[in-house]
Parts: sequence; structure tokens; C-alpha cells
Amino acid sequence: MELYSYFRSSASYRVRIALALKGIAHDYVPVHLLKNEQLRPPFADIAPAKLVPLLKDGDQLLTQSLAIIEYLEETHPEPPLLPGSALDRARVRALTLDVACEIHPLNNLRVLRFLVHDLKVSEDDKNRWYRHWVETGLETVERQLAGHPATGRFCHGDTPTLADIALVPQIFNAQRLDCRLDHVPTVMRVFGECMQHDAFTSTQPSACPDAS
Amino acid sequence: MELYSYFRSSASYRVRIALALKGIAHDYVPVHLLKNEQLRPPFADIAPAKLVPLLKDGDQLLTQSLAIIEYLEETHPEPPLLPGSALDRARVRALTLDVACEIHPLNNLRVLRFLVHDLKVSEDDKNRWYRHWVETGLETVERQLAGHPATGRFCHGDTPTLADIALVPQIFNAQRLDCRLDHVPTVMRVFGECMQHDAFTSTQPSACPDAS
Repeated sequence: MELYSYFRSSASYRVRIALALKGIAHDYVPVHLLKNEQLRPPFADIAPAKLVPLLKDGDQLLTQSLAIIEYLEETHPEPPLLPGSALDRARVRALTLDVACEIHPLNNLRVLRFLVHDLKVSEDDKNRWYRHWVETGLETVERQLAGHPATGRFCHGDTPTLADIALVPQIFNAQRLDCRLDHVPTVMRVFGECMQHDAFTSTQPSACPDAS
Repeated sequence: MELYSYFRSSASYRVRIALALKGIAHDYVPVHLLKNEQLRPPFADIAPAKLVPLLKDGDQLLTQSLAIIEYLEETHPEPPLLPGSALDRARVRALTLDVACEIHPLNNLRVLRFLVHDLKVSEDDKNRWYRHWVETGLETVERQLAGHPATGRFCHGDTPTLADIALVPQIFNAQRLDCRLDHVPTVMRVFGECMQHDAFTSTQPSACPDAS
């Protein structure tokens, strides 16, 4: 397999963690978003949405980080990234989407660029926007983790799931942009637990071949 | 089951379509977003993210529309909303997330409110923002549907899948906000096909008990 990735892209980081947890060998192909390499050939020719991550499995091209990870889960079931019961899987997927639909889309590079370049929002207001969605969004995650009987060492139980895979890259972004995090102690405890795990540390932005 | 829904919420509409396609009986509980009923008890007491839709199945509360629909798919497999092979499922989920992660989160009510009330973006600029993400996002979907051998009467094959369930509510929003749609003919052909289907029409915003 080949993973097209950008070291700072949190959606790419999700797929890097999943590949590492499952021990799937792959080549790393960097696509530099700040240099707009995603908008030009050769990458733009194969990526319909001009977004990373993109996973090439044989001659198949897979897009959207969560769809890619569900595919890896189905084709490489061990170790599982989703729990055994439908109800538990619904909890893990909901936590995942609380990050992937309610926080991350508002804060990715092309959205921040549009705010500043097209809507002429000031740098201060852009940062306020960023922090607002991260801080309120993580508060929602915290409310669902704190005191819930299914929360364990990780978001759900004592092994990493899709929910941890979504959460950790979001915390990296939050820290990089100086977001408040003292109001989400359970989230941060789980983050700390993940960062003891090689699959999360060996794939972190600073450990990527294209890190700069 | 009980579905907490707002007639104009496109994430709620997704779950309404899925319940209808699977023929699952349920009660409809309206939560009026413009009146901020989602932020107050009794709804806020049971909804950690204060968002609709929320599905109550027995004493279990399920959140996040796509997690709810995957749960319905697992617990009520007929008719299937995802195709049979892992690769085809990845295609359907990626199309779904192209709407649910790249378009919809940028255009929901609380985001538009923050743009106007907190960042003081003008009404014109808010509409320009809205249309930009809808029009470019649907263009990405179009590129993946047009000419792809797996595209059939619907986004994937000749029966409705999760991808159609995500797409149709987004087109309703696009039409309500006068977005350009003539550049996405395949998307609109699929939309027309869906609107021949009772599960999509009987659950559309204007057919909801709380429509006004």
C-alpha cells in the first residue's frame, strides 16, 4: 500500500495510526499542502477531492480517512479498532464523528484560508474561531467520556479504537494553536494514555518523513 | 424507537430516510433549533452534544447521524444501505463523508450564527461562504460519480445507499440557499432518482410533523 500524507494533516495522522496499530506495511508519499501540491499533478490527477490522506491498495484508490480506516478494519480485522457489539460500535463511531464532523472540518487549512483571504477575517478572529470549535467540541467529547462506564484506559475500554484515532490528532492541533484544554481532564488523560503507545508516537507529525 | 429531529436539520433528515428505507417504526419528537430547544431541558439533559438527531432505542441514546445509521444497518440489515464488498463499502462511505465532513459541517446553523454574531461577517459574505462550500463540495462528489462504472441509478448501483442518504438532504439545503447546481448533472440526476422514492419524499422537511 501507499499512503499519500502530509505530516500536519490530522486526517492523514488518523490513517497513519490505524496502519501502525494493525501493523500494515506501506510506503509514505508526502504531499505538501502549504506548497499546494494537492492541487497540482501528479497528486491532483488521482485525487478527486484534492485532499489527503489517500490510500493506494493495489490499483485501488481510497479516500476519506474514516472510510479508509473502516476498510482497513474489514480487510485486516486484527487488532480490532471497533468493539464487538453494535451498541458499543455506535458509541465509538459517535465519539469519532464528534471530532471528525463537529471540530475538524471547521479548522482545516482550506477553511482557515477562506476565512482570511476571502472573508477578510482578521488573524485574531480566525484564532478565536479555531479555539471556539476546538474548545466547545472537546467539551462535548469530555461529557461523553467522563463517568461513562464504557470509558476505560482509552475512549472505549482498554485498547485503542477509532475514537482514540480521531481524538489524538485533534489534540495535537489544539496544542499547536494554544487552545484551552484544562476543562477536558478525561480527554487529556486518554490522550496521555495514547501517547504511551508506539502506534500513536511513531506516526505523530514530528516523526513523519516530511516533517519540517 | 424515538427520533428527536428538527424538520430542516439535514443530519436528522438522513436518519429519517434510513428509518423509512428499513421500515422501522418510531415516534417523532420535534426539537425546534431556531427556538434553541436543543440547548434547554428536557432535550439538553439527555443530549450530550445538544445536537439533533438523537435516536432512543429502548433506554439507549444514540447520537451522530452516521453512527446511528451504521447501527441501524447492523441491527436491521434489510434492505442493506451498504454494498457487499469492502471496496464498494469504502466508496460509499467516502462519498458519504465528502458530504458529511467537507460540506455540511461548514453550513449548519450554529456555524452560520457564529460567523454573523461573533465574527460580524455580513449577510452577503455568509451566503458567499455557504455557496462556496456547497458548490465546490458537490463538484468533488460529481467528479466521483460521473463516468464511474459503479455509479448506477443511485450513487452506487441501482438501490439507495448511505451515500444517497447523505446527498439528498444536502441538495435540499443547496436549493434553499440558491446554490448553483448546473455544474453537477450526475448529482442532480441521482437526486431526481431519489425523489421518486417514497423513503426520500415522505421524510423530506416539508412532510415532517414540525414543518412550518
